[in-house]
Amino acid sequence: MQLKLALIGFGVVGQGVAKILGDRGEFFRSRYGADLVITAVTDVKKGAVADPKGLNPKALLDHLEQHGDLTTFPAPERGWDALTTIQRAEADVVVEVSWTDVKTGGAALGHLREAFACGKHVVTTNKGPMVVAPWEMLEAAGRAGVEFRFEGTVMSGTPVISTAWRGLRGCEITGFSGVLNGTTNFMLTRMEEGLTYEQALAEAQRLGYAEADPSGDVLGWDAAGKVVILTNTVLRCPLKLEEVQLATGITEITPAQVEEAKRAGQRWKLVAQAAVEDGQVRASVLAKRIPLADPLAGVMGPTNAVTFHTDLLGPVTIVGAGAGQKETAFAVISDLLDIHSALVARQR
Amino acid sequence: MQLKLALIGFGVVGQGVAKILGDRGEFFRSRYGADLVITAVTDVKKGAVADPKGLNPKALLDHLEQHGDLTTFPAPERGWDALTTIQRAEADVVVEVSWTDVKTGGAALGHLREAFACGKHVVTTNKGPMVVAPWEMLEAAGRAGVEFRFEGTVMSGTPVISTAWRGLRGCEITGFSGVLNGTTNFMLTRMEEGLTYEQALAEAQRLGYAEADPSGDVLGWDAAGKVVILTNTVLRCPLKLEEVQLATGITEITPAQVEEAKRAGQRWKLVAQAAVEDGQVRASVLAKRIPLADPLAGVMGPTNAVTFHTDLLGPVTIVGAGAGQKETAFAVISDLLDIHSALVARQR
Repeated sequence: MQLKLALIGFGVVGQGVAKILGDRGEFFRSRYGADLVITAVTDVKKGAVADPKGLNPKALLDHLEQHGDLTTFPAPERGWDALTTIQRAEADVVVEVSWTDVKTGGAALGHLREAFACGKHVVTTNKGPMVVAPWEMLEAAGRAGVEFRFEGTVMSGTPVISTAWRGLRGCEITGFSGVLNGTTNFMLTRMEEGLTYEQALAEAQRLGYAEADPSGDVLGWDAAGKVVILTNTVLRCPLKLEEVQLATGITEITPAQVEEAKRAGQRWKLVAQAAVEDGQVRASVLAKRIPLADPLAGVMGPTNAVTFHTDLLGPVTIVGAGAGQKETAFAVISDLLDIHSALVARQR
Repeated sequence: MQLKLALIGFGVVGQGVAKILGDRGEFFRSRYGADLVITAVTDVKKGAVADPKGLNPKALLDHLEQHGDLTTFPAPERGWDALTTIQRAEADVVVEVSWTDVKTGGAALGHLREAFACGKHVVTTNKGPMVVAPWEMLEAAGRAGVEFRFEGTVMSGTPVISTAWRGLRGCEITGFSGVLNGTTNFMLTRMEEGLTYEQALAEAQRLGYAEADPSGDVLGWDAAGKVVILTNTVLRCPLKLEEVQLATGITEITPAQVEEAKRAGQRWKLVAQAAVEDGQVRASVLAKRIPLADPLAGVMGPTNAVTFHTDLLGPVTIVGAGAGQKETAFAVISDLLDIHSALVARQR
């Protein structure tokens, strides 16, 4: 089956999606019968093009590399903004991979609303709408009768949400705990190797893991956003960002404390967790010492992990990439293939 | 949608399935619309009953506890053997949970063949048929146009095969390495705590983890069976049990070697792995020293884990229960809910 895609945003993730489709579109067609065709791309900075017959992903990337934007890319339609693209592009699926704003939801919130209103299927890696208005999004998708996937909002393409939704659906997930921020986990790993907090931060900034203002990572806000998404969509309990208990993140961990944990057979981690008890959710992102035998303790560097606590199966932990261009773009591909299967099954 | 189930085997796993259905059948109906009804049970030792209107799972378990078998359980049909049950029971799904024989496939091989021939969907936790004849089984299911799931053959209900098939399908899985035998991993954990091999084995036998003849576990044959299943069904490469490289398993690991690994920041694990290179599979189950930073190193006691090596996403590790009654019964439930979704989607 052919799925026509409108890419809203052509930054790191959007380009990553185009790269994967250029490299292995043929493989997806032959292995899964999934013909994934980009028919529109729109980006605030890079311009917009649309062609109902399909835009060649490699040509898009080559053009971008040569010209710095898409404004002169040959296509029958040009210059549509995001909302116009969602309304007018010939697309089955809106792929929302624009800028993330977890405080307001950002423009992405409007993009998703419009996509559902137009009856389009949606894939997003954008945490904004899923932190700010997860139930509105889930309900809008349900009312529209469309498929909606957002695997890439937590731990990039590592199958966390899909595994909870499918493989674990027979049991009750009563809570989870995770290492959900790669930047801080990288820094903690380096601090265990002898660096101070300040040195580890400088290195993370040099490597591009941490931003100039690192507070979103080091204080725990980024991880808290993921806690909100998992709590609402996997634990199925309402939780807002401001309800997640935060403290000083990893900012006050000293070399002496790191040493002390080591001697006690423990390790500092920024633990993001939530648990439901008597219908009440308690959620937090706090630096904690955990025993080395805990599967989360072995998660080093920028790798992430989450342990789902279940009634019938006990703890189930998934460890994998927490971020990265191709890893996050993979989340989109994985969601698109899942939507493709669902639509094929609907047709039988 | 209602799914009528014929349970072939009513031992530990079959009773576990009945227990879960008794406890939360109502939950599966209300949450997923899945009405899972046992219409037949057959067991070589415990007798057989069938009722197209459904057998009450709690009543079956109570009767078994009081009478030791099902021969006097009130039902319109009684005494059918496995093949007759598969042929004549009013069932949509054959749940094969009888004795496992990984050398010949055992009676289960015939049960699955008959189920596919009768056009029934199949769920099994039985490694036998999937070690001896995985391609025959997959192809028979495909020809019959029925759903076929076998999550419980590897790491009980921990979602390993379903995650590889779904969440990871957009990337290429080039190999895997795992800790796939709980008994040996428990023993290695105890040996690291100071026991000799012999003491650890005696304890494992006392706790019921290891059998009187422990060779299937300690030499690696059990793990090798799981390597065969994952290689054939996830890596999609043909591999036979006798092609898996085995040595002395964990039987020759000495306390001195355990200490030496500890000092080097490493840990002994019975590593089950397979990799595809240039279309060739290399598979082995060997005791190895692995660095503590490897996610498999942190897997202690009877817990199991597998790391899938992928091209786009890097390594993805799933850690969870390797065995256990409710954990393996959960695999059946999880597979049944998955088949239920697939059938609901077909109807739309």
